[in-house]
Amino acid sequence: MSGTTTGATNGLAKRVTGQVHVIGAGLLGASIGLGLRAHGTEVTLEDASPTTALLAADYGAGRARTPEDPEPVLVVVATPPDVVADVVARALETYPDSVVTDVASVKLAPFLELRRRGVDLTNYVGSHPMGGRERGGAIMARADLFVARPWIICRDEETPAAALALIEAVALELGATPLEMTPQEHDRAVGLVSHLPQAVASLLAGRLLPASDQAIALAGQGLRDTTRIAASDPELWVQILGANREPVVEGLDALQADLAAFTDALREPEAPGARRRLADLLAAGVRGVSRIPGKHGSSERFTTITVLIDDRPGQLAALLTELGDLGINMEDLRLEHSPGAQIGFAEIAVLPEVAERAVADLTERGWRTL
Amino acid sequence: MSGTTTGATNGLAKRVTGQVHVIGAGLLGASIGLGLRAHGTEVTLEDASPTTALLAADYGAGRARTPEDPEPVLVVVATPPDVVADVVARALETYPDSVVTDVASVKLAPFLELRRRGVDLTNYVGSHPMGGRERGGAIMARADLFVARPWIICRDEETPAAALALIEAVALELGATPLEMTPQEHDRAVGLVSHLPQAVASLLAGRLLPASDQAIALAGQGLRDTTRIAASDPELWVQILGANREPVVEGLDALQADLAAFTDALREPEAPGARRRLADLLAAGVRGVSRIPGKHGSSERFTTITVLIDDRPGQLAALLTELGDLGINMEDLRLEHSPGAQIGFAEIAVLPEVAERAVADLTERGWRTL
Repeated sequence: MSGTTTGATNGLAKRVTGQVHVIGAGLLGASIGLGLRAHGTEVTLEDASPTTALLAADYGAGRARTPEDPEPVLVVVATPPDVVADVVARALETYPDSVVTDVASVKLAPFLELRRRGVDLTNYVGSHPMGGRERGGAIMARADLFVARPWIICRDEETPAAALALIEAVALELGATPLEMTPQEHDRAVGLVSHLPQAVASLLAGRLLPASDQAIALAGQGLRDTTRIAASDPELWVQILGANREPVVEGLDALQADLAAFTDALREPEAPGARRRLADLLAAGVRGVSRIPGKHGSSERFTTITVLIDDRPGQLAALLTELGDLGINMEDLRLEHSPGAQIGFAEIAVLPEVAERAVADLTERGWRTL
Repeated sequence: MSGTTTGATNGLAKRVTGQVHVIGAGLLGASIGLGLRAHGTEVTLEDASPTTALLAADYGAGRARTPEDPEPVLVVVATPPDVVADVVARALETYPDSVVTDVASVKLAPFLELRRRGVDLTNYVGSHPMGGRERGGAIMARADLFVARPWIICRDEETPAAALALIEAVALELGATPLEMTPQEHDRAVGLVSHLPQAVASLLAGRLLPASDQAIALAGQGLRDTTRIAASDPELWVQILGANREPVVEGLDALQADLAAFTDALREPEAPGARRRLADLLAAGVRGVSRIPGKHGSSERFTTITVLIDDRPGQLAALLTELGDLGINMEDLRLEHSPGAQIGFAEIAVLPEVAERAVADLTERGWRTL
């Protein structure tokens, strides 16, 4: 196993040498495959659904294993959480010399289940790369899904150093930041920063169902942001929340107490101290949100320029053609427009060094930029 | 008052002629000043705080009134909600020939208060431009704050047509979309799409206060988005929520019932139907968020077709030009691509009735669709 990293002094220069086998070719598995292949690592794939495996392969995330392939140095289990323990146990048996990791978003339940079955866990290191999107599937995969994101590694005292180093090398190769935690620490932390917001966003979004069209038409960025992750797959989240029940229920109970206190204070504004209680709860929110570290990663690599476009056919095509003529490479594009408005915005991500020239050139050609 | 708009047939060609006086030079007042001045309208400003008024003036939002100034055609009251009725009453008295509007985010309470005082409201038209930011103050002002946002105008049967036309002209000049509603309709709608999310985001963010640094370090985009608006000014929100108590309490009560049902189901997963209740509540969130219009193809009014594009410059422009040639109107566009992937996706929202033909035509011309 000592050949799995180059042992370079700079962590970022580490390389994964040898094949990596990914089981489960959805969003996470395909993104890991894409990212590792971009760095020259050979990746093989399998999925319970042959269609999904083929789609991920077409997308460039890896290829099917053949009988000629050597045993992989690493097996990454990227299946839904409720089958993780099964698939990890099977992988440890099928590939006795491979390190096996999983990337499930809960860490204690699968670990306890593997322990309960008496599986030899010497070669197993649980991990959790904290990248994700509200929509899953291989077609949403991105090689940069984990860039600048934490990649939690759940080692214990029996984890061989080489196995740990291998997972770290994978995390670093994909641009993530490896962090060590116990499964318990991990589950408490994600219960608060990931699972609780998911439940809250879903319940808030559910309140929109009985609303009038007139009310929905007034929705703005605040509502969009607070409910964005509510678009996530319910089936997956029933599994995740169920597997991390204790921390999530604790968080929901605490939130419910705050919600009751807030509602009571708003209902009876003349009760002694009611306005003060409202203000205190709102101020706690201000302090809470200020604890969240700044946005890291892919977005900071680019500068966004905003171009106003008239809402008529062909305007966006004309803008993009113009950008191409100007030799400006568009790294990302986001369109903002509102039904009924005559104007929309194209938010175009470009490399910082070309942003100023792009704005000048576009302005000169009659485009309005913000 | 008939001189306040040009009466042009095209809404966008309307102009506000004459001075506009803005009372309250915070985020909204200064943004209105900036936007109107950008269109050549003369803007004067006042604020209870001379420092704020000077800051907004320095920022380009307008200048102080002088004794030589004529009576403004329009007075815009952009003060905190709890003094809106006072300031509107005073403005109607000070400028008896001016139309007076306010831009407070609650509409019924100030209207009822003005009625209760017996103020002649002939020249008053309440309005609410739905632009905002989580941080206030003149220094956060933007001329484009209201572009493509709804601007609700609360007329009643006594509102003179010319006064209504003037507010509409201001809204259009600032790029907003004027919408008419009664104060009651307005307050119910914003209670749901703006005030309820604010309360929820604040309470969720407040749960981060007792969290460990280790947990906070795992925060990702989901938590950032769900809590972003919790950074808003608590004092302002105590006023807003207090002034729209009834709809907000109703929304909070409904949310609390859902939260209790969700938490109970998670606490007792083996209870009959518990997993189903969790899944149903999460699925309601998926359907709820899909009702929000205007971005990322999430609207159910359109069908999304996904076209594979090679990751080389000019491909997207070529696709959009092709769509234009085919006479297919693109309602929204979302781009998915990853630096490590060989292909990207363009998710294009079109009217359901043209989706099939669009796929057929694009396929015939060599584009790959999913």
